[in-house]
Amino acid sequence: MTNIPPLPQIVIEPMVRRALEEDFGTAGDLTANLLVPETATATLYFKSRGTGVVSGLQAAILTFALVDPDVHFETFYPDGSRVRKGTIIASVEGPMRALLMAERTALNFMGRMSGIATLTAKFVAKVAPHDVRIAATRKTTPGLRALEKRAVLHGGGHTHRGSLSDAIMVKDNHIALAGGVDKAVRAVMAGADHMAKVSVEVDTVTQFKKVLKHRPDVILLDNMSLDALRECVALNKSKTTLEASGGVNMRTVANIAATGVDVISIGALTHSVMNFDIGLDAG
Amino acid sequence: MTNIPPLPQIVIEPMVRRALEEDFGTAGDLTANLLVPETATATLYFKSRGTGVVSGLQAAILTFALVDPDVHFETFYPDGSRVRKGTIIASVEGPMRALLMAERTALNFMGRMSGIATLTAKFVAKVAPHDVRIAATRKTTPGLRALEKRAVLHGGGHTHRGSLSDAIMVKDNHIALAGGVDKAVRAVMAGADHMAKVSVEVDTVTQFKKVLKHRPDVILLDNMSLDALRECVALNKSKTTLEASGGVNMRTVANIAATGVDVISIGALTHSVMNFDIGLDAG
Amino acid sequence: MTNIPPLPQIVIEPMVRRALEEDFGTAGDLTANLLVPETATATLYFKSRGTGVVSGLQAAILTFALVDPDVHFETFYPDGSRVRKGTIIASVEGPMRALLMAERTALNFMGRMSGIATLTAKFVAKVAPHDVRIAATRKTTPGLRALEKRAVLHGGGHTHRGSLSDAIMVKDNHIALAGGVDKAVRAVMAGADHMAKVSVEVDTVTQFKKVLKHRPDVILLDNMSLDALRECVALNKSKTTLEASGGVNMRTVANIAATGVDVISIGALTHSVMNFDIGLDAG
Amino acid sequence: MTNIPPLPQIVIEPMVRRALEEDFGTAGDLTANLLVPETATATLYFKSRGTGVVSGLQAAILTFALVDPDVHFETFYPDGSRVRKGTIIASVEGPMRALLMAERTALNFMGRMSGIATLTAKFVAKVAPHDVRIAATRKTTPGLRALEKRAVLHGGGHTHRGSLSDAIMVKDNHIALAGGVDKAVRAVMAGADHMAKVSVEVDTVTQFKKVLKHRPDVILLDNMSLDALRECVALNKSKTTLEASGGVNMRTVANIAATGVDVISIGALTHSVMNFDIGLDAG
Amino acid sequence: MTNIPPLPQIVIEPMVRRALEEDFGTAGDLTANLLVPETATATLYFKSRGTGVVSGLQAAILTFALVDPDVHFETFYPDGSRVRKGTIIASVEGPMRALLMAERTALNFMGRMSGIATLTAKFVAKVAPHDVRIAATRKTTPGLRALEKRAVLHGGGHTHRGSLSDAIMVKDNHIALAGGVDKAVRAVMAGADHMAKVSVEVDTVTQFKKVLKHRPDVILLDNMSLDALRECVALNKSKTTLEASGGVNMRTVANIAATGVDVISIGALTHSVMNFDIGLDAG
Amino acid sequence: MTNIPPLPQIVIEPMVRRALEEDFGTAGDLTANLLVPETATATLYFKSRGTGVVSGLQAAILTFALVDPDVHFETFYPDGSRVRKGTIIASVEGPMRALLMAERTALNFMGRMSGIATLTAKFVAKVAPHDVRIAATRKTTPGLRALEKRAVLHGGGHTHRGSLSDAIMVKDNHIALAGGVDKAVRAVMAGADHMAKVSVEVDTVTQFKKVLKHRPDVILLDNMSLDALRECVALNKSKTTLEASGGVNMRTVANIAATGVDVISIGALTHSVMNFDIGLDAG
Repeated sequence: MTNIPPLPQIVIEPMVRRALEEDFGTAGDLTANLLVPETATATLYFKSRGTGVVSGLQAAILTFALVDPDVHFETFYPDGSRVRKGTIIASVEGPMRALLMAERTALNFMGRMSGIATLTAKFVAKVAPHDVRIAATRKTTPGLRALEKRAVLHGGGHTHRGSLSDAIMVKDNHIALAGGVDKAVRAVMAGADHMAKVSVEVDTVTQFKKVLKHRPDVILLDNMSLDALRECVALNKSKTTLEASGGVNMRTVANIAATGVDVISIGALTHSVMNFDIGLDAG
Repeated sequence: MTNIPPLPQIVIEPMVRRALEEDFGTAGDLTANLLVPETATATLYFKSRGTGVVSGLQAAILTFALVDPDVHFETFYPDGSRVRKGTIIASVEGPMRALLMAERTALNFMGRMSGIATLTAKFVAKVAPHDVRIAATRKTTPGLRALEKRAVLHGGGHTHRGSLSDAIMVKDNHIALAGGVDKAVRAVMAGADHMAKVSVEVDTVTQFKKVLKHRPDVILLDNMSLDALRECVALNKSKTTLEASGGVNMRTVANIAATGVDVISIGALTHSVMNFDIGLDAG
Repeated sequence: MTNIPPLPQIVIEPMVRRALEEDFGTAGDLTANLLVPETATATLYFKSRGTGVVSGLQAAILTFALVDPDVHFETFYPDGSRVRKGTIIASVEGPMRALLMAERTALNFMGRMSGIATLTAKFVAKVAPHDVRIAATRKTTPGLRALEKRAVLHGGGHTHRGSLSDAIMVKDNHIALAGGVDKAVRAVMAGADHMAKVSVEVDTVTQFKKVLKHRPDVILLDNMSLDALRECVALNKSKTTLEASGGVNMRTVANIAATGVDVISIGALTHSVMNFDIGLDAG
Repeated sequence: MTNIPPLPQIVIEPMVRRALEEDFGTAGDLTANLLVPETATATLYFKSRGTGVVSGLQAAILTFALVDPDVHFETFYPDGSRVRKGTIIASVEGPMRALLMAERTALNFMGRMSGIATLTAKFVAKVAPHDVRIAATRKTTPGLRALEKRAVLHGGGHTHRGSLSDAIMVKDNHIALAGGVDKAVRAVMAGADHMAKVSVEVDTVTQFKKVLKHRPDVILLDNMSLDALRECVALNKSKTTLEASGGVNMRTVANIAATGVDVISIGALTHSVMNFDIGLDAG
Repeated sequence: MTNIPPLPQIVIEPMVRRALEEDFGTAGDLTANLLVPETATATLYFKSRGTGVVSGLQAAILTFALVDPDVHFETFYPDGSRVRKGTIIASVEGPMRALLMAERTALNFMGRMSGIATLTAKFVAKVAPHDVRIAATRKTTPGLRALEKRAVLHGGGHTHRGSLSDAIMVKDNHIALAGGVDKAVRAVMAGADHMAKVSVEVDTVTQFKKVLKHRPDVILLDNMSLDALRECVALNKSKTTLEASGGVNMRTVANIAATGVDVISIGALTHSVMNFDIGLDAG
Repeated sequence: MTNIPPLPQIVIEPMVRRALEEDFGTAGDLTANLLVPETATATLYFKSRGTGVVSGLQAAILTFALVDPDVHFETFYPDGSRVRKGTIIASVEGPMRALLMAERTALNFMGRMSGIATLTAKFVAKVAPHDVRIAATRKTTPGLRALEKRAVLHGGGHTHRGSLSDAIMVKDNHIALAGGVDKAVRAVMAGADHMAKVSVEVDTVTQFKKVLKHRPDVILLDNMSLDALRECVALNKSKTTLEASGGVNMRTVANIAATGVDVISIGALTHSVMNFDIGLDAG
């Protein structure tokens, strides 16, 4: 999926500034200061060193722009593109000092975000035969949630709640505090803002039945067996969305999808990610 | 290694604030607002769900403190401790609303940082028979470098350059711009601040010999064969530190260590990390 | 309604800091510097000068705490309380300099937020006989949305979308761009994240019928006559929430409520607010 | 009055950034993301829906510029202009996504600031026959003082103290602490920086006489009857400026002006403001 | 003069945080990390190494508090105190790591601010026989104005304008643009806010006479001879304050004071300052 | 030395923004608001009023750019240039309001930084016959370290540690805590990161001998007599750099240089600086 709009720049600019600040300290790039002439320029190429999905280009573009507005960044494969080993994803042309100073930070963004997009795309491919969505969770890297959720979109996944303030998710703790499932769900359905969805987590079919009566927007089926998932799907005659989570990995995801749930949410999409290897080379 | 001092709080506070801000939006925790009574309190336990090394506790402590100073955080296994499945690492006691609002952010910090410490410790264990250090690189998550470098320390590794402003690393690009190895290294040795170390990257033994004559503080042997590494080690009669990098993984690291290099630096320590699973449970 | 949890302090602290910074300039309080002895202390009382609903106390408390942690703030009528002329809402006791320096900023927060809560409560009272909610919009004062939405809660209203990122609202512009109501609503229902509600705005009964077929979570009936509103209510057999907006004021709100809509949203709750007069007096 | 210089952009940029950040959350505009093609462009017009004075355009311009520098903003009636229902104040032309994402924030600034300018202009018109100034106070919305004071200028009013650090205002609290009017005023006149004006508040003619002897720059006549105001004016033979405050509204302001005071300061100019209705329409 | 109130902490906290951030980088204090045991504590003493006036203690106190709230700071000679070589100004007691990490930053604040206070006190002493004030200018170190102006107060001087937004100063550029002294001064006297003082700069007696007719609050006599200053003083029968500036140094200041001007403003108080040497010693 | 690269703009932009914010308050430039027509433009020239070395131009350029991007700044003598009285260093051309609003802040940066560069150059000139470096310390103005260290480079000096996180310096406190020189130095040499230099401070020849055995990268000879310095130089047969500090001034520096030490570090370079006088004139 390549048709995801960029994030508002105002959202990612602080992330990029922080990254550059922590890399520049009080003296900038000591090495470039000594060795790179002011007039040296170059064109360098972002080359994929594996097969996957690109993400993080927007942050990379901003990284170079903040280091030196004279750098020209050209994108050949925008965020969300599938690339293979050797694909030239983008190029940067401009003062060599700026290119060297921005390189590591830009690659750190791209490597992580492309890693997320690529991992997401693998899960999505595994469930392709089924009418099911792969979704991220709030298990994102602190401070980078907007970019990481966007990377999940680039990989073909969905974003789920953006924050605690976006939607309501009732978990076992809440149920215990409220005095039982019925009380909890009733309280939430009555009190929830009309623009906020309500999701309730269950881990048995018995609980599921209790909750389903209240017709929440979503029921989260946590760590349930394939049989139990199937039973819940069969019981659901309403518009309620069924979301499975827990124990999802490359081996289990297709079977979970086959149960008929609507959404499978996976923390690993953003919390256990292999860097996608991209080089910045001279040609 | 459990004797690593904490970071200055002033360095990590902005990281924690940002993480909470992105999770709270404009309304805080919609679910807790509706379901958790103001007076509810609880004691919850951070329980390890695997075997590894703890890191990120300092950020977790600050997370709870910023959400509610009335939360009492008790640490049983401080950052740098080895834990196994089921170990109670720490506890939090206080208002239930605060506990639920801080939980995800605290675990996001701990999961990632403990993942880094655990991965580092595995590499360190692999090279235990040898007198060699495992070191991180600048391939860190944008905005979290201080915490991630500290996590590498917790795992028994070393930190390497903190930023472009800390030390000098001459790479092929610089050498080309300077007109050859000799010119580049001479320029750097002459111009470098007396408190900044100089490292020069080479990828052949021939280059190594050229560079060694200048006695830089460090020579980085990039992507060289085991034979070549051994040859460099044999040639080095000086105080120059030899650092190997490139192609390092769990299968290769011991052999690289056996060549006699002083340091092995590994980007994956911070850029390709599995979350270390920690739960926050009622007892 | 007095049982609204406070906002996370981390959300309002930047608002309070900015307010104090703009009031302190580079010299602090010139007058107190010259006239108030360091040792002078006092107890002052927040006294209501009208009948209404209190809000903004949380910000006021933080204002004094940030000016001087030695100020003791005691709350008698918490946010959400109804007060009348002469009610002592709270007291502050501590160094006179701090009290005088924080006074104006604290009152600016309380006057505006209590004004919002009071206005909301008036609308809520007008529709009391009906099963309908009064809701705010995104027409909030730039930079103060979290506090103003909370003030609406204190007045008995509801918050609506917190941001563009919380839920989906399809308006006429979107429909035109998408090539008609059907296409727009279909695209949104297919693409919307499973945790995000979908609202579609219509301004005629004809449009309403088209949209209703898609069963969005909410249909916003904009600037429609009472007859048209009633017709929409009659047509709605689904779970779809009907929200009326446009031309809502103290004279019209009860009639609109009587049509049977579920929600009435009112920009004026936050954009056209009379300050609620509170004094800070010596006794 | 249309000849008021803009504020330094550096002063208002943080206000605009905060407003956009709170409206964008972690995902930006969910609706535009789904429905607005990247290539869609439009020209939209800011149209006045009432009679009043424009203010806040500078913030609106910056809002669009920060969302997308490719938006072209054209101003037909600059800040300070009188407009009537239907007047086209300005236009924006550019990518539709950017226009929709910035719209609400820009209008929130313009609606509030134009509301202040319009209210100020009404007070100014009421006192037109008299040689008197209408001035704002420090009762401004926290975080927006610079913009709100500027809006008062746009409406033909004056700004008064910008902060506690700008000038000295001695009130009853200070007088009590200093041991009486004479002591307080003497201390202040002796200690005040030579570039800071001194104002002393009185609420009786007797106090006024005591204070006048010290020839402060300004005497603030708080909540005094028209007769008392006239008496003060008659007694004043010096350069001392007389400022009336308290109980000022549309019905009383002309009579207060007729007493001959130099300045009338009104908290309501900034704390009790009706939004000035401006639409952003397609043509 | 020792009775100057402290600045609001909110004003200086950002200055202290920035100073610590730039000194801590991403790893904190490498040396203390390696050598100082967590349990080591100490008491250290701020000892004056010269004769002068203390300033900057407030920033120093906050520096230690931000590094570690467990440090106990005790002040023996508060800001504004005269000290001599060997005077123990204050002590800090607490964890050795914190003491070492905060030491340099705290001393940097104290050294510079005490330098300013000491220099000011020397000028003040030179003019002691005369009824004249020594005042600072806006020639302060970027980002530290509030602290530096306070240091001038500690030294017995006065602060002058805090910012361009505090008061009006008409200089030759403005006069040229306005079409002559009369036009400029008339425009300013008519337009100036009633709470803002007006100062007009002149450099000849002829100009002085022209300006004096308008009775501005202050006339700034720039770079005028002693004779010319005396002539201006003789001509001034009004409340207008006369301020001399330009060419003021330790040798000239007493003669300038003897002319009878009211204020002498000196940029050097804040822009050309010798560090006041203070050590942090073990006993 | 004129060939010093500029700092990354991202590093100095916050410094410039803060400086402008503290100078603009809530109203900007009151005087320019009243007297300078929007359409007035001018060309002004930065003219040196003394002999010295220019620094701070990069901050000055950014100051004008942030106030108004329409100002055109032209540099004739870049940072690091030697200028004499009357030299035109640079020009600014653009709207008069912007020029006047930025003038003081730009000159505050240039005056201080050129003062540092000029002072450094004087020390460098004094030691010209010797093969020795003049270096700064961490005794910099809080918040401006990056700019001040760069100014030292412009003056021909060297920067030394940028922060506590850059390199290791063992002082007497550390040695005492570690239980003696040998233990301290051994611990540090063993634990120091391989990219961090180690410096050890001594103040007697006896200590020097003990430390030299460990071959640290640098030995800091603090406050030692010329004879002692010479003895240390004679004893040093290794690559260890010898740095002298303490009691360095214009009269002593050449003799210290003559002892043969490699580096002389001087706190006064950044903590006791006379402003370098630069005017901004009409032609």
